[in-house]
Amino acid sequence: MRVRAPIPDLAPGERRLRGAIAHYLARVLRLRAGDAFVAFDPATGRESDGVAVEEDGGGVTVRFGPLRQGARPPEREITLVQGLAKGDKCDGIVRDATELGATRVIVATTLRAVVKLDPSRAAQRQARWARIAREAARQCGRSEAPRVDAPCAWEAALGLVPEPAARFCLWERATEPLAPALLQALAGRVPLAFACGPEGGLDEAEVRRARDMGWSVASIGPLVLRTETVAAAVLGAVRVWSALEDAPSAEPLLERGV
Amino acid sequence: MRVRAPIPDLAPGERRLRGAIAHYLARVLRLRAGDAFVAFDPATGRESDGVAVEEDGGGVTVRFGPLRQGARPPEREITLVQGLAKGDKCDGIVRDATELGATRVIVATTLRAVVKLDPSRAAQRQARWARIAREAARQCGRSEAPRVDAPCAWEAALGLVPEPAARFCLWERATEPLAPALLQALAGRVPLAFACGPEGGLDEAEVRRARDMGWSVASIGPLVLRTETVAAAVLGAVRVWSALEDAPSAEPLLERGV
Repeated sequence: MRVRAPIPDLAPGERRLRGAIAHYLARVLRLRAGDAFVAFDPATGRESDGVAVEEDGGGVTVRFGPLRQGARPPEREITLVQGLAKGDKCDGIVRDATELGATRVIVATTLRAVVKLDPSRAAQRQARWARIAREAARQCGRSEAPRVDAPCAWEAALGLVPEPAARFCLWERATEPLAPALLQALAGRVPLAFACGPEGGLDEAEVRRARDMGWSVASIGPLVLRTETVAAAVLGAVRVWSALEDAPSAEPLLERGV
Repeated sequence: MRVRAPIPDLAPGERRLRGAIAHYLARVLRLRAGDAFVAFDPATGRESDGVAVEEDGGGVTVRFGPLRQGARPPEREITLVQGLAKGDKCDGIVRDATELGATRVIVATTLRAVVKLDPSRAAQRQARWARIAREAARQCGRSEAPRVDAPCAWEAALGLVPEPAARFCLWERATEPLAPALLQALAGRVPLAFACGPEGGLDEAEVRRARDMGWSVASIGPLVLRTETVAAAVLGAVRVWSALEDAPSAEPLLERGV
């Protein structure tokens, strides 16, 4: 797989890039003369094959091939409903979730939350998380940042994700493992949603409410994860296993019941 | 799945617990009177069904049933070779890796590392990571903390993980996705190992060396992850999908080629 880099105003031909984008190509992607990559225009979604021609301290010269429509399938819709956690934990969770492919993040207030959301600062926090999401999207080469909703109560957040999404409420005391239902959802190519509590965990009433609203209550194992690890673990699982859909060698393996 | 809690000197009967373990049961696991859990003795591996009887400010009273040999299969061996990253990133990576089931962590120095390891402080850092691993193991209810090796050079670290482990060097420019080979390794129940670079990425010579030593060079997708996200994502994938091995509903799904 080629690395992808967002290039504003992408056009065929040679171009000298400076500033943040040159830094990204030279320092983050570590492209050197002759290295190929896929360039995409974040505004239009069009793509082009890029080759690094020269790098010096002040910038990077790149040659772009003909433009084409972005060949990638549209991103899978993945919503994360995250219980409001204390301090800057949600900042890190938004960053991880963006890198790992979430397309929507909803921070929800829950009964056992260690912190309460100050309503007068909700808009400010939403704006902060949206900014973190944009920065993380740019850093990891995603065309679009996830949408960040205004923080709201648990039940309202769950209600924002309608069917046909496959919706999973992750709970350490759930009796059903996540994997079989998630595998089915991946194969069905439906949107996905995951909800998880804050550091204090979910209250049983909240778990019941999720189940009543059609969410599957699922476990990702008996060890108790910190809330800031849950999203990375489950989105990492989706990311790694999504490759099976396209991998030519996956189907025989699956048919063999591996 | 029941939550698990480490109880030193586990014995049948009623017992009043205080201090750190009471805090863990009452505040982290949020057990209330009548709640059941699985207690295990970290020293012997024996288990017992526990029920919380009463909780007050000063401690938790718990009743333990008869002891039995720990019924869980031995943990899967999972080694993480992590490129030395700057600041306290490796602290967080060790914590995440412990929660997500790594049994051994080896921090490796690499060519593009942003920081160098001061040899006079290597033992001190190893001790620090080992302490973080022990704390994280206790927090998440694992019987044993992962082993933390002395930090060493990339090639030496790779050499510490012998066959028959399925060994994957994660590289953003790899052409093969991780999933198919990982699925095969999970089914084969062999030990696993993952190696990933620091924030500057791996040098091509390091990737070649890994391949020469029998590691599979694999990609977990074209987006560029921060180094502190890679371990969580890949160990999360292993954790979620390991449940398929035991889940009764997994096999029909797999046979249907889902």
